[in-house]
Amino acid sequence: MIIIGEKINGAIPSVAKAIAGKDAEFIKNLAKIQSEAGANFIDVCASVEDSLELETIKWLIDLVQEVTDTPISIDSPNARICAEAIKFCNKPGLINSVSMEGDKIELVFPLIAETKWECAALLCDDTGIPQTGEKRLEVFAEIMKKAKEYNIAPSRIHIDPLVQMLCTSENGILTIMDVIKEIKKQYPDIHVTGGASNISFNLPVRKLVNQAFIVLSMSSGMDSAILDPTNKDLMGMLYATEALLGMDEYCMEYIGAYREGKFGVKK
Amino acid sequence: MIIIGEKINGAIPSVAKAIAGKDAEFIKNLAKIQSEAGANFIDVCASVEDSLELETIKWLIDLVQEVTDTPISIDSPNARICAEAIKFCNKPGLINSVSMEGDKIELVFPLIAETKWECAALLCDDTGIPQTGEKRLEVFAEIMKKAKEYNIAPSRIHIDPLVQMLCTSENGILTIMDVIKEIKKQYPDIHVTGGASNISFNLPVRKLVNQAFIVLSMSSGMDSAILDPTNKDLMGMLYATEALLGMDEYCMEYIGAYREGKFGVKK
Repeated sequence: MIIIGEKINGAIPSVAKAIAGKDAEFIKNLAKIQSEAGANFIDVCASVEDSLELETIKWLIDLVQEVTDTPISIDSPNARICAEAIKFCNKPGLINSVSMEGDKIELVFPLIAETKWECAALLCDDTGIPQTGEKRLEVFAEIMKKAKEYNIAPSRIHIDPLVQMLCTSENGILTIMDVIKEIKKQYPDIHVTGGASNISFNLPVRKLVNQAFIVLSMSSGMDSAILDPTNKDLMGMLYATEALLGMDEYCMEYIGAYREGKFGVKK
Repeated sequence: MIIIGEKINGAIPSVAKAIAGKDAEFIKNLAKIQSEAGANFIDVCASVEDSLELETIKWLIDLVQEVTDTPISIDSPNARICAEAIKFCNKPGLINSVSMEGDKIELVFPLIAETKWECAALLCDDTGIPQTGEKRLEVFAEIMKKAKEYNIAPSRIHIDPLVQMLCTSENGILTIMDVIKEIKKQYPDIHVTGGASNISFNLPVRKLVNQAFIVLSMSSGMDSAILDPTNKDLMGMLYATEALLGMDEYCMEYIGAYREGKFGVKK
């Protein structure tokens, strides 16, 4: 499982406060604990007003790179910011994200074409988030056409099928599970990613919904996720699910991660 | 989800002590709390020496029936005990269990043929637990042949595919998941059941493995389980999974169960 650590995000009040107050130690600590917990990428999202976004994301990226070698996930709804921020990173990371909306792909794909950068791509376009599985797969096909054009291997792409909140859904995540299966069938090396917590919006005891969601998504083929790697129960659940899905012979990884304290030990 | 409450089992040390000391209140309390937590059946397993099993199971059944109307699940590896204990029950419940081993089915099926009793049936025979999915499905076919012979509708049968411990498995539960899917495909009205905790034997932080196991099994079609209904995280996970699998429109059941305190509230 590829873990994209979600904790450095200006949409989280404590992080917004640290950004406003230039509290470097707070940010560095978030980078450090996520890296130690096993994050494969450290997501960095400023969530500030447009005029401050580029300088803020640079400040955040610099701080993360001071304390860890874990690659950066540049997180902005503005593809121009993503494109600019590439140069702040001292090694290839992940662009989070593009989609078929506007000129996002045209801006980002040429920049990462001949690199080792990876890229998250959302299944939406200028008409918004498609409501049917078929339509999402059409958007997916368009993204892959562009990826081929710029010679970006499927293994560098993390498709986010855009799971919507469960409380307004009529068939749960069955449609999304089918979309994930079809994507992995077409491109076995591609990654499928998603946030692990949007699903439970407006519901009580959200952690249970989030945990069950990630287990089910993994069974469909999701192999990347934006989540809090310091959430030990969630991390343990990921290792357990990989073992149950036959991806961890004799539970060696599960037991190893437990011994390393990645889950099961109360701090 | 059909919940078979597992707490009254002489294999659990505190229950063994209550049985040995004739502590009626202890047993009655276990029946009461499981019933209140939403159990559909209260499993009753003596786990005492053979000569005492029948009188012990009668004592346990009588106590359960003093405090709850929830049907009994008569749990014994000895089909003769199951057959005898039917008469202690004041309403139809569940026989737990038969299999193709020996004359178990011949003993039990005739007794429940013209009744509303349900029956758990394990996918094993005189050669033991089959190691391949194909062989388990062969045993399943034999059980269903017998069920047809005695006119026992699939909706009264809970098939237990016999999940073995994960730590010695090479492909996790993938084989079992395929077996469950095939069973539900052949008989959409049949129930598929299993213990929610054997899977994690010998592993650390067993609750995470148990929870992920039940989520994955439910996605394959498991709709019945032997578990502790007073385990609120596990119960919440069941409701969450049903909602995610499109079995709970707008999460009404999930939210209702939360409001009733079935999960999410610390005691």
